[in-house]
Amino acid sequence: MAQGTLYIVSAPSGAGKSSLIQALLKTQPLYDTQVSISHTTRGIRPGEKHGEHYYFVEKEEFKQMIAEDAFLEHAEVFGNYYGTSRHAIEQILATGVDVFLDIDWQGAQQIREKMPQARSIFILPPSKDELDRRLRGRGQDSEEVITKRMEQAVAEMSHYAEYDYLIVNDDFDTALSDLKIIIRAERLRMGRQKARHDALISKLLAD
Amino acid sequence: MAQGTLYIVSAPSGAGKSSLIQALLKTQPLYDTQVSISHTTRGIRPGEKHGEHYYFVEKEEFKQMIAEDAFLEHAEVFGNYYGTSRHAIEQILATGVDVFLDIDWQGAQQIREKMPQARSIFILPPSKDELDRRLRGRGQDSEEVITKRMEQAVAEMSHYAEYDYLIVNDDFDTALSDLKIIIRAERLRMGRQKARHDALISKLLAD
Repeated sequence: MAQGTLYIVSAPSGAGKSSLIQALLKTQPLYDTQVSISHTTRGIRPGEKHGEHYYFVEKEEFKQMIAEDAFLEHAEVFGNYYGTSRHAIEQILATGVDVFLDIDWQGAQQIREKMPQARSIFILPPSKDELDRRLRGRGQDSEEVITKRMEQAVAEMSHYAEYDYLIVNDDFDTALSDLKIIIRAERLRMGRQKARHDALISKLLAD
Repeated sequence: MAQGTLYIVSAPSGAGKSSLIQALLKTQPLYDTQVSISHTTRGIRPGEKHGEHYYFVEKEEFKQMIAEDAFLEHAEVFGNYYGTSRHAIEQILATGVDVFLDIDWQGAQQIREKMPQARSIFILPPSKDELDRRLRGRGQDSEEVITKRMEQAVAEMSHYAEYDYLIVNDDFDTALSDLKIIIRAERLRMGRQKARHDALISKLLAD
């Protein structure tokens, strides 16, 4: 059985990353592509399900997992912990399924270190004006908030060159097709194909 | 201007490599994908054109080019020389065009050494029976000749794992689509995209 590939996807907010990943998963069967489910210590919200949106765990358990090096990456945000369990990811990859992980550049760096075979994709908005428009949203936020968002977007984008692939989300359908093409091409790489066509190769090379 | 990519394609005879490359080039414009034209010292045959099928040169000139390290790879076959000019390839790549090079595993090894950024693709037939059928052709060759061909095919295939991508040519259209997907995905790689979207990236990262 050929191992699946872990894809790290990063982008500044406003680049359309979440919509792209959601659209991708809708067109791919579950036995083919899945999204990574994180562990978190924050409280469960109405409508959320354990094991679907997050694995909700107690802070004690999370800290224990950190101590056991159970996370490919983890971070603390406003007093809550979030992390990606190595075991959860590896279990899915072992079944030949590709896993998508929506994460920022800092998480991406942690993962590359622990799982160098992961592939990473950065998504950029098509223009500064369009990014500005998307970050302004419905025009209900203060200039201060918007400036802060733009600074964060630029900080995230400054790490784009650390990624394997770059997609510019100008036309949504083209960007979605780009994502699919990357997945299909990665499946044609020698490592994946060697495992998949193992029996054929043995026969062809036998005398 | 983003540099084009050099693709090395190898396969045992009978795998359908030439038909695939020809079909690929028919669907791609010349400003997009081209096939490499070799230098040779063998005589020009009826219907062949200098600069289209080969660059036909004298043995003296060829040897001079070897001495000047002008070839990415070269070989002598039945007293004639064949080689791939580094300058000819680099001129095309510089215009952003991808170049396909149909070559055996020995040429592929020479090229990888001189141009590590080249990508390599190996094509396999779908089964031993099918390979056998294709090598037998129209049934007009002796068993000895066929056995020899099969040995050469196995020798070529024994190097498959040195390549970046593996395509199994079971269904011709699927294999052709696989080739196209590899090209498109390689164009989404950071190096190519960085050069292509240089102006956009500068604007996005400017304060």
